[in-house]
Amino acid sequence: MRTRVTEMFGIELPIFAFSHCRDVVAAVSRAGGMGVLGALYFTPEELETELAWIDANAGGRPYGVDVVMPSRYEGAELGAGSGEELQRRLEGLIPDGHRRFVNGLLAEHDVPELTRAGAGRFLLGWTDATARPQVEVALRHPIALLANALGAPPADVVRQAHRHGVAVAGLASSRRHAAKQRAVGVDVVVAQGTEAGGHTGEVSTMVLVPEVVDEVAPAPVLAAGGIGDGRQMAAGMALGAEGVWTGSVWLATEEADTPAGALAQILRAGSRDTVRSRSMTGKPARMLRNDWTEAWERADSPGTLPMPLQFMLVSEALRRVGRVAHPTLTPSPVGQIVGSLNRVRPSSQVVYEFMTGFGDALDRLNAAAEGRPTPSPPSR
Amino acid sequence: MRTRVTEMFGIELPIFAFSHCRDVVAAVSRAGGMGVLGALYFTPEELETELAWIDANAGGRPYGVDVVMPSRYEGAELGAGSGEELQRRLEGLIPDGHRRFVNGLLAEHDVPELTRAGAGRFLLGWTDATARPQVEVALRHPIALLANALGAPPADVVRQAHRHGVAVAGLASSRRHAAKQRAVGVDVVVAQGTEAGGHTGEVSTMVLVPEVVDEVAPAPVLAAGGIGDGRQMAAGMALGAEGVWTGSVWLATEEADTPAGALAQILRAGSRDTVRSRSMTGKPARMLRNDWTEAWERADSPGTLPMPLQFMLVSEALRRVGRVAHPTLTPSPVGQIVGSLNRVRPSSQVVYEFMTGFGDALDRLNAAAEGRPTPSPPSR
Repeated sequence: MRTRVTEMFGIELPIFAFSHCRDVVAAVSRAGGMGVLGALYFTPEELETELAWIDANAGGRPYGVDVVMPSRYEGAELGAGSGEELQRRLEGLIPDGHRRFVNGLLAEHDVPELTRAGAGRFLLGWTDATARPQVEVALRHPIALLANALGAPPADVVRQAHRHGVAVAGLASSRRHAAKQRAVGVDVVVAQGTEAGGHTGEVSTMVLVPEVVDEVAPAPVLAAGGIGDGRQMAAGMALGAEGVWTGSVWLATEEADTPAGALAQILRAGSRDTVRSRSMTGKPARMLRNDWTEAWERADSPGTLPMPLQFMLVSEALRRVGRVAHPTLTPSPVGQIVGSLNRVRPSSQVVYEFMTGFGDALDRLNAAAEGRPTPSPPSR
Repeated sequence: MRTRVTEMFGIELPIFAFSHCRDVVAAVSRAGGMGVLGALYFTPEELETELAWIDANAGGRPYGVDVVMPSRYEGAELGAGSGEELQRRLEGLIPDGHRRFVNGLLAEHDVPELTRAGAGRFLLGWTDATARPQVEVALRHPIALLANALGAPPADVVRQAHRHGVAVAGLASSRRHAAKQRAVGVDVVVAQGTEAGGHTGEVSTMVLVPEVVDEVAPAPVLAAGGIGDGRQMAAGMALGAEGVWTGSVWLATEEADTPAGALAQILRAGSRDTVRSRSMTGKPARMLRNDWTEAWERADSPGTLPMPLQFMLVSEALRRVGRVAHPTLTPSPVGQIVGSLNRVRPSSQVVYEFMTGFGDALDRLNAAAEGRPTPSPPSR
């Protein structure tokens, strides 16, 4: 295939695969698309290890790294300082009532305490101060793309990437956000509809992509949100996108390190089983509706805290429920396409099915336009 | 163009245009698509007048009628009886506190009282008892399609339509609803995503259409929700639909009788300015976010009533705010594509732009697949 993004990155297929798992990233890049590693959960040292592994296993194909540099977050005015110092100051902003609510919730569900204190990685890369070291590490590797998951990245980070010959992508959930991204020099805008997993806005992919395409033209746009098969890829590109940005579909692949409990929930869930909730990070993120998301809507809920305080508040709880793979209390970010995820495939098979589905969709559109009988019933 | 729905109905273009305005219906049918008149607001006598007008003005082209026969509504167990009797019994179910809230809201906004009592058309076609006479009227005209806007229509109504040689369509917002529609004999399933105006579910068009296509195959599916231009039409059909079902886009046409105040709001609004609210009918319907929708979320709101009680409760209020074209209190059902509605065009021009946009989108997809340079930047 050939679009402006395949040309830009020298890739065969305009399929971008976001994953926290290096094996998925390498597999998709090897299959002709572009894997993008979500760096959020890694320390700089761990990220170094992951990227070195990808360098050795992506067959020399291009790949990217995704960081989280929210343009607004609580405590941003506390200044850069060190990550540890910022974390201490932010922890002082978490009310005791919120801590009691979380502990009570875990007690209700008989979630055991941790036997030893965790690594204390509560802040993660949610802030400018903690994401910059990740950027430094990423730019020491032959990455092709640096993506920012929340809002426009700082302009100096964009310039830094460009000096390394690395293109920058930004996720946008509104026309206004897209314009901001372009203003700071973002090269590729990912227009992400509300149906997407994780942080997401309110406007659907069908409506958002054409709006963003019109806003940022001639800059290339990727369609994101609700893209899990070749029909949806063709739809996203019909809307004006030069390719697709995907995430949820890779959770149910053989290479993914999705915890068994979460995978079982994902394979079982329908498209109506997700909800946009602030309960994990403080900003609305789409995840499976379960006891965790419902608890934060209860009458006795203290309400969620702003980013990054909410994640700091619930970080230990997430490790506790994760350790026992709690079936109803583990937050599980995923998009509405979860309803069509009902088998585990190799990542290369997912890429292959994207392409056959795209081809079938295009055949049907051409037949309709040319007045030929429909060539075949539509299929996944 | 040729798809299974153009063959089924003998139309040139698989564009279905829902409108409460007969002029739009006739204009779209004349332009090669199929206009579908929303019957809800008409008495049987008025509907007779509207359809006679369409018969005389659609150039002999096929058109359809859309009724509302919800599968569940409050008071359904009161039995059929006459519409007037049912209305009296239902009115007894509306709490006084709700009436006081509505009256207070209108007083806050200085909305004048009606100078004389209205026609008392509070119940409209929201129920089996009141929609059936509309069906009787519709089937006396040469309609090609009877559509049901909420859930699966009663099986005997489907049989009645089929005896008249009339195809039946049903709107579905989930895979399960689509299966129910097929079980009662619906011929065409309209898969309507959450971004649509009016009554709508939670799953986006991008996710819902492929699910419904897979569920009801080989029955034809129309894509609805977020479809306002040719790019979105191509996207909907890439997802597996045989055509598109559209609504909001016709509100901003020269033929539409959209009240001036509502039209001004529509032309000004962005795609993030809508909300799903129960405040008009008791079931979630997407409309512009304004003082009306916000009031029902306030701390002093008594909450909304189930269908059809909510509409009966607010019916007079709607006439009062409508009469003065209240700029912030008039409910205005519209989908997220409202953000791209910023000029008033003739309906035939809208149809024409659907087709040129579809052609451009298809050219881009073919170029991408064949490895040719992109022929032109995507455009509306």
